[in-house]
Amino acid sequence: MKDKDSDHKNSSICPLTYALDLIGGKWRLPIIWALSQNETLRYNELKRKIDGITNMMLSQCLKEMEAYGIVNRQQFMEIPPRVEYSLTEEGKNLMPALVSLAKWGKHMKSKNGQL
Amino acid sequence: MKDKDSDHKNSSICPLTYALDLIGGKWRLPIIWALSQNETLRYNELKRKIDGITNMMLSQCLKEMEAYGIVNRQQFMEIPPRVEYSLTEEGKNLMPALVSLAKWGKHMKSKNGQL
Repeated sequence: MKDKDSDHKNSSICPLTYALDLIGGKWRLPIIWALSQNETLRYNELKRKIDGITNMMLSQCLKEMEAYGIVNRQQFMEIPPRVEYSLTEEGKNLMPALVSLAKWGKHMKSKNGQL
Repeated sequence: MKDKDSDHKNSSICPLTYALDLIGGKWRLPIIWALSQNETLRYNELKRKIDGITNMMLSQCLKEMEAYGIVNRQQFMEIPPRVEYSLTEEGKNLMPALVSLAKWGKHMKSKNGQL
C-alpha cells in the first residue's frame, strides 16, 4: 500500500517545515542576516541595519528567537544599561543553509527576472 | 553613515527572501520533497504522496512551480492522457540547501522539544 510510504514522506518533511517556521515572517531573516555579519550588535545598531522595522517588531522577534535558541541576549549592568545581541551556535549553524538558499534564489531571480 | 551599509545589507538578503517566496506556503515543500524522491511522478501518484492536498491546491501549486522553473510537466499524447511531473535542474539544485535546512530543523526540534 502507498499509505505507509506517504506517511513516511510527510514525517520526513517535518524538520524542514519546522526550520522554516523558526525563520519565517517578514523580519526574522533580516535580523539573522544582520547578526551574522557582526559578532555582536547593540539593540540600536541592529535596528539601524533593518530598514523600516519598528521597536515593537524588533523586540518581539528578538524575544521569540531568543526562546528558540537562535539569538543570544546579553545584558551588561552599566548605566545606561547596555544590551548586546548575537547569534547562538545554533544560529550560526543555520548560515550555510541560508547562504546556499540565497545563491539558489539569486540564480532563480536572474532567470525569472521577466516574471 | 550607516544608511549605505544598511541598504547593502537589505539588498543582500533579497535573493534569500525570493527563494523562500518561491518555496513558501503549505504545499510547495511537500510537493518538491515528493518529486525529489522520484525521477518522475504522475499526477495521481503525486497526490497520493501528499496527505490532505486537494486537486485544486495541487494543480495550482504545480502550475506556479512550473512557471517558476522548478517543476517540469510532460504530457504524453495517449488515451487516456498521461501527465508526468519531475523537478527541473533548478529544482534539483535546491535540494542540498533544503536537506541542510532540514538537518538544522531536526536538531532544533529535538533541542526545543519542550517548547
